[in-house]
Amino acid sequence: MSAVRVAMLGCGTVGAEVVRLLREQADELAARVGAPVELVGVAVRRPHKHPELGELLTTDSSTLVTRDDVDVVVEVIGGIEPARSLLLEALKAGKSVVTANKALLAEDAATLAEAADASGADLYYEAAVAGAIPLLRPLRESLVGDRISRVAGIVNGTTNFILSAMTATGAGYADALEEATRLGYAEADPSADVDGYDAASKAAILASLAFHTRVTSADVYCEGIRNVTAADIAAAREMGCVIKLLAICERIPGADTESVSARVYPAMIPATHPLAAVDGAFNAVFVEAEAAGQLMFYGQGAGGAPTASAVLGDLVAVARNRVLGGRGSRESAYASLPILPIGAVPTRYHVSLDVADRAGVLASIAGEFARHGVSIAAVRQTGDGSTDGSARLVVVTHAAPGEALAATVDRLAGLDAVRGVESVLRVEDLGRKGVTA
Amino acid sequence: MSAVRVAMLGCGTVGAEVVRLLREQADELAARVGAPVELVGVAVRRPHKHPELGELLTTDSSTLVTRDDVDVVVEVIGGIEPARSLLLEALKAGKSVVTANKALLAEDAATLAEAADASGADLYYEAAVAGAIPLLRPLRESLVGDRISRVAGIVNGTTNFILSAMTATGAGYADALEEATRLGYAEADPSADVDGYDAASKAAILASLAFHTRVTSADVYCEGIRNVTAADIAAAREMGCVIKLLAICERIPGADTESVSARVYPAMIPATHPLAAVDGAFNAVFVEAEAAGQLMFYGQGAGGAPTASAVLGDLVAVARNRVLGGRGSRESAYASLPILPIGAVPTRYHVSLDVADRAGVLASIAGEFARHGVSIAAVRQTGDGSTDGSARLVVVTHAAPGEALAATVDRLAGLDAVRGVESVLRVEDLGRKGVTA
Repeated sequence: MSAVRVAMLGCGTVGAEVVRLLREQADELAARVGAPVELVGVAVRRPHKHPELGELLTTDSSTLVTRDDVDVVVEVIGGIEPARSLLLEALKAGKSVVTANKALLAEDAATLAEAADASGADLYYEAAVAGAIPLLRPLRESLVGDRISRVAGIVNGTTNFILSAMTATGAGYADALEEATRLGYAEADPSADVDGYDAASKAAILASLAFHTRVTSADVYCEGIRNVTAADIAAAREMGCVIKLLAICERIPGADTESVSARVYPAMIPATHPLAAVDGAFNAVFVEAEAAGQLMFYGQGAGGAPTASAVLGDLVAVARNRVLGGRGSRESAYASLPILPIGAVPTRYHVSLDVADRAGVLASIAGEFARHGVSIAAVRQTGDGSTDGSARLVVVTHAAPGEALAATVDRLAGLDAVRGVESVLRVEDLGRKGVTA
Repeated sequence: MSAVRVAMLGCGTVGAEVVRLLREQADELAARVGAPVELVGVAVRRPHKHPELGELLTTDSSTLVTRDDVDVVVEVIGGIEPARSLLLEALKAGKSVVTANKALLAEDAATLAEAADASGADLYYEAAVAGAIPLLRPLRESLVGDRISRVAGIVNGTTNFILSAMTATGAGYADALEEATRLGYAEADPSADVDGYDAASKAAILASLAFHTRVTSADVYCEGIRNVTAADIAAAREMGCVIKLLAICERIPGADTESVSARVYPAMIPATHPLAAVDGAFNAVFVEAEAAGQLMFYGQGAGGAPTASAVLGDLVAVARNRVLGGRGSRESAYASLPILPIGAVPTRYHVSLDVADRAGVLASIAGEFARHGVSIAAVRQTGDGSTDGSARLVVVTHAAPGEALAATVDRLAGLDAVRGVESVLRVEDLGRKGVTA
C-alpha cells in the first residue's frame, strides 16, 4: 500500500523526538496504520542546525505544506503566525493536520476547524493540552455520550513545580521560581507560565471540547501565581488544603439557560482530593460527568518525548483515516452556551484578617458579608500572640458571585476594626466536602 | 438524515441506564452523531419486568440482532453464551457491536474481531474494562504511536474496597468481606471478584491491546485476595507499602525475543505510588510507555451509570462511523509475542520468617536464597518479644524468576532454623524505587 507522506513544520525539542520515533518505530507504525508512514520534508529556519535531516530540509514552509506528495502536516513551531497561515494553506489543500499549538487553537480554533470541514481534512491536537496525557480524545470521543459538568486540572508543570516546592519546603515564591529556573522547569522569561497564560490557553481548548461551545483564550479569566506567599501556603495547610494553579471549566446552571465558566487561578483544594497529590512537573486533569462520575487523567504534561508521543498518536489516527477512509471527530460547537464573566461565577473565598481584639468586631465584619449577600461557611478567631490587642480572623465563605466576594473584601479593608487583609484565597472543593475552618 | 437504529441485548442495571441516557440526551446525541440515535428493540428474558419499554421488548434475541432495520447491537447480558453466538450473528449481518462483556472478550476476542473484519463492522468494548474510565480508546488510539512497556492497575472495585477497609481499620479479610457484602460492593457469591477472575479477564483485554498480541484469560496467571491477612497488611505498612490486587501486563525483554506477561495477584506497592492512594471501589490503571512516560487513569470501575457512560461513548463512535463512513480501530495482533508463564516472570518477594535466634541462622537462610540464584535486596531481623529464643526475619529479594522464588520459600520452610514462614508477599515497585527493608 502506498505510504502516508508527512511534512513537519519546525524541528525543536518535540519535532526531533517525532523524527526519532518515526524512524525507530517505522515497522510498528506501518503495521498499525496499514501503510508506511514516511517523512518527506521538514521546514526549519536554520537548516545547518539539523545536518542529520539532509535532503528533507527546507526553509520554504509555504511550498512544503501544499506539495502534492504531502498527505499530512505536523506543526510543532508554536505561536500564532506563521503557524495559522501555514495550517490554513495545508487544510485548504486537503492535507490533514496534527498540531501541538495551544496558543493558536485557543485563539482561533474556529477558523482552522472551518477550513478542515470545508476540505474534509482531519485536524488533531492532542499534544496541545497536558502533553502525553490522553485527554482530548477521551473528551471528544469516550465521553461524547455523557454530559460533562466540570473539567478542572493542573495543566502547567512549571507552576505546579513551584507550588509543590513552596508546599514541601516552606520556601517563598521567588526562591521556588529560582530553583525551577535552575533545574530547567521554568524559562528565563517565565511569564507565560507563572502568569497563567499557558494554562488559560489550555482551559479554552478544554472548555470548548467539554461543552461544545467555542471558548477562546480571551474568554478565560486568568490569575497567575506571582502573589502566592509562604503565608498563603501555610494558611491552606491549616485548613487541610494545598494550593494549586487550576484551570477550571464548569457548566453553570441558570434560571433560563446554562452558561460556561473558564478560569485559571491559584486555589485551595482539599488535601484529600486526587489532584492534591499531583506534585512536581506532573499534570493531572479531573473530569466530572453526569453518568461517568469522577475521572482523573495523570501524566507528564510537557517535554519532548511525552509531547511527541501525543503527536504520534494523532499522526497514526489521521494516517489510518487516509488509508481506511473516514474522518475523525469534527469541531462540535452546537451548544453555543454563553460564557459567564468571573464576577458572576459562584466561587468561595478564604479571607484572613488582622483585626482588633475587641467587642463588636466580629459583628461588624459578619455584617459586611451579609450586606453583600455572601454567606459565611466558617469563622475561626485566634489571638496572634501579640500584645497590642490584635487577633487573626479567618472567614471561609459559601459560594457567592465573584463580584460580591471582591466587593466584600474591598469594604472589609476599610473597616476600623480591620488592621489588615492578610490574604484572600479562592477555595475549590471540586466535589469534596471538606474545606471549612 | 436517517436515524441510526440500535438493538439492545439485556436490560439490567447497565442496560436501564443506557436506555435512560438515550432518551434524556436524545437531542445532544443526535447533534454529536449527525443523526438521531433510535432504540428499536430490547431483548430480555422476562418482559414483564420492563413495562416501560412496551413495544420495544422481545424475547427473540436471535431475530432482533439480524433485523434489517438494526444498525448497531449493544450487548449488556454478559457471560459467554448466548452472547457470543448472538454477537457473531450480528457482526456477520454487518451490524456494529458495542459490548461490555469482559468475560467473552477475554475468552474469545479473536473470533469476534475476525467476524467484524469480515463484514467491515465495528466492534467496540470500552465498558468491558474499568467501567467509565476512558482507557481502551487511549490505549488503542492515543498511545498507538508509542511503545507501551507496562499496564498495571486496580481493575476490580470489590477487592479494592475490601483491601482498603483492611488497611484503614486493621480488620481481617472475613470481616472486610462481610462489610463489602452488606454495603452492596460484593455479591452473595464473591468468587469472581475475590479469586481474581474478573481482574484476569480485564488483564487479558489490556495485554492484548497494549502489546498487539492475543492474550486470553487462560493465559493470565491469577491469585485472589482470600489469603491476605491483617498481618500481611501490617507487614506492608512496616515497609512503607500498601497491598493492592493488581492486574499487571508487562513487556519482558529477552535475549532473542520479547515476551508478554499478564498476571493478577495481591502485591505490596510503595505507599508513594499514585495507585496506592486509590481507595474504596475506585479503579485506576497506570500505564508506562517509552515516550509518554508514566500515565494514570482513575475513576469508577463499575456501576450502572458509569458503565453506561462508556457504552454511550462507544455507541456514538460507531453511530458516527455509520453516518460519516469510516471504521474504528481493528484488532491489532500483529506482534504475536509469546506469553511467559509465571514461573519465568521476574518478580520480587517479601518473606517474613519466624526463626531461631542463634548463630548461623542468617547464613543458612541467605545460603538458600543464593543456591536458587535469588539475590537479596534487604534483610531486617528483630526480636519478636518472646522469651523462647525466636526472632522475626524479613527478607526482601531483588527480581528473580517466579519459580526460583517459590522453590526458595519451599526449602526455607524445611530448614531447622525456620520455625515458620509467616507470610510471603509479592512486591511490585512499578517504577518507583522504595521497597527495601
